[in-house]
Amino acid sequence: MQRRPFLQTLCGASLATAFAQAQETPKKLGWALVGLGSLSTNQIAPALLKTNNARLAAVVTGSPEKGKQWSEKYGFDASHIYSYENFDKIIDDADVDVVYVVLPNSMHREYVERAAKAGKHVFCEKPMANTPDDCRKMIDACAAAKKLLGIGYRCQFEPHHREAMRLAREKVFGEVKHIQANFGFQSGDPKQWRLRKALAGGGALMDVGVYALQACRYLMGEEPVEVSAIETKTDPVKFAEVDETINWQMKFASGRSAQCTTTYLFNGYNDFTAVCQRGKFGLEPAFGYTGLKGFCSGAKNYLELPNVDHFQLEIEAFSQAIIEGKPFAPSGEEGLRDLLVIDAIYRSIQSGKVEKVATV
Amino acid sequence: MQRRPFLQTLCGASLATAFAQAQETPKKLGWALVGLGSLSTNQIAPALLKTNNARLAAVVTGSPEKGKQWSEKYGFDASHIYSYENFDKIIDDADVDVVYVVLPNSMHREYVERAAKAGKHVFCEKPMANTPDDCRKMIDACAAAKKLLGIGYRCQFEPHHREAMRLAREKVFGEVKHIQANFGFQSGDPKQWRLRKALAGGGALMDVGVYALQACRYLMGEEPVEVSAIETKTDPVKFAEVDETINWQMKFASGRSAQCTTTYLFNGYNDFTAVCQRGKFGLEPAFGYTGLKGFCSGAKNYLELPNVDHFQLEIEAFSQAIIEGKPFAPSGEEGLRDLLVIDAIYRSIQSGKVEKVATV
Repeated sequence: MQRRPFLQTLCGASLATAFAQAQETPKKLGWALVGLGSLSTNQIAPALLKTNNARLAAVVTGSPEKGKQWSEKYGFDASHIYSYENFDKIIDDADVDVVYVVLPNSMHREYVERAAKAGKHVFCEKPMANTPDDCRKMIDACAAAKKLLGIGYRCQFEPHHREAMRLAREKVFGEVKHIQANFGFQSGDPKQWRLRKALAGGGALMDVGVYALQACRYLMGEEPVEVSAIETKTDPVKFAEVDETINWQMKFASGRSAQCTTTYLFNGYNDFTAVCQRGKFGLEPAFGYTGLKGFCSGAKNYLELPNVDHFQLEIEAFSQAIIEGKPFAPSGEEGLRDLLVIDAIYRSIQSGKVEKVATV
Repeated sequence: MQRRPFLQTLCGASLATAFAQAQETPKKLGWALVGLGSLSTNQIAPALLKTNNARLAAVVTGSPEKGKQWSEKYGFDASHIYSYENFDKIIDDADVDVVYVVLPNSMHREYVERAAKAGKHVFCEKPMANTPDDCRKMIDACAAAKKLLGIGYRCQFEPHHREAMRLAREKVFGEVKHIQANFGFQSGDPKQWRLRKALAGGGALMDVGVYALQACRYLMGEEPVEVSAIETKTDPVKFAEVDETINWQMKFASGRSAQCTTTYLFNGYNDFTAVCQRGKFGLEPAFGYTGLKGFCSGAKNYLELPNVDHFQLEIEAFSQAIIEGKPFAPSGEEGLRDLLVIDAIYRSIQSGKVEKVATV
């Protein structure tokens, strides 16, 4: 009576793996990519060639020519090429299980809602949307359609970040007392959509500052309650519509604090540091696609972990959650929580005051 | 006609040194220490044994017993022991050229003014005073007495800091775009004067935050114009009167920014980073009495410079300025500038708003 549950607990994972291997290879979930810009081209599509439970099955693009090139390169039939106009027909496409929205931020809400209505699970790039209200509507749309919604916070699947989360959670250096997190780079092409407020919703904060914010939240293990922010701008022509550099600081309910800087002005600011009761640890660089490096008090070359494809891992995790019918994190609520802080940061810049972070 | 000025320029320093060595050893300036606490005991008095142009000539103490011990240990006559009551008699003490005020912050103004009135040059520990108005009065008192006033910003004489200033000023890594500077430690004895607002004027910010502020100002080479600050407190009993942790951020007129954290809550936050156009440089630890270490993009063990006695250097520099009849930096105005920013930081915490930094 006792033996079977014990064995199941002990060997459940490997037995399941052996069982799965004994069966024929399960069908990979079909993913449709909406938006074939640089991120889809250089990161996501290549990752979908490596994923063990997902494959690129369709694309949504404004360019029929580009669609054709992609169908040939990635081996799906031209019938799985959609335009933004006929996208809703994807409801009838049995090859597509998941829609991955990789569009400019302001378009996330519309395509997440349309994908959910088409009966597809939805994976959405960060930042989730331009406003908390948009996030709530996206969560509601997926809930109404009974479809899973995940946000592309790739770092949450990356080994250095996961180990850092463990160090914080298990108080390996004592309690985390303070976080410093920064992400910025020198923005290039002045004509890119990321510098248009109508498309991007904001500048460096929306694009890369959100990584620093994420790190603070998942290392603290609690939500910020107040923020104060200042914006500085040295190039008001290039950054006429969006923020160039934002500094912000956050107060947590426990009385702990964090400080962050994000910028489109200069390179090389790409790190986080957790200042703990008994030392510090962190990553630098922290948020790139590869080459992440750890550090801690009293040791060099800390956290020497393998470089992995962040996009492969997030796609596999989301696919696995669908296959197993389980919840997925980072969820839409996680995306909403960041937008609530971002909203407070922008309000603080406008008001020149400390602003409270609204609750979910 | 051309040759002599050329040689003077080229060899001025070494000729002057040779000339000085040929003369008999000049009399060392006599320094009086006001306040014989830990800093005087462990740092300043030992430094005065090493200084080439200064010596400990008198003390001002509330304890006659302590005064006697010091006169024996440091070899000055008991007639040079003063109490806080009879301090003004120092006007007649020809052995005393300089009074070094090492008292709790709130007493700086009174003793700087009394020392100036007694016709002595004055060196004052940081922070200069509790308020900008006190600083202005101290500057006026020394100006009226035609005596030199210097502030004990020891890092400004320290080789790592001086090299960092040069790297910033000469744009060795390109222009400095942003500064991160932090200094804090876990405060010990709950009964110390530094935790009493009436004596210290404030908490971590007044005591150690001022080092981080200094670094921002001398690396930026310009003054902050606006600040926003938040205070967090996890131990409202121990830190009932003064700040435990303050985060603040500063905007400079050029559009550049800086962020700082200071704390009495945890150890190990003791660094600055200058984020520049072409990489970063900084110190960690940055503000201790010894063991400072440099870093920069792409190199380990950057800025391997000798460890020196910061107090010896500042005392020698102030003495030399007196001997040569030259101005001294960091001056009282430098101390005032920090207090103007500190005042804006405390105002920001009170108002919850961005506050402008008042001008000198």
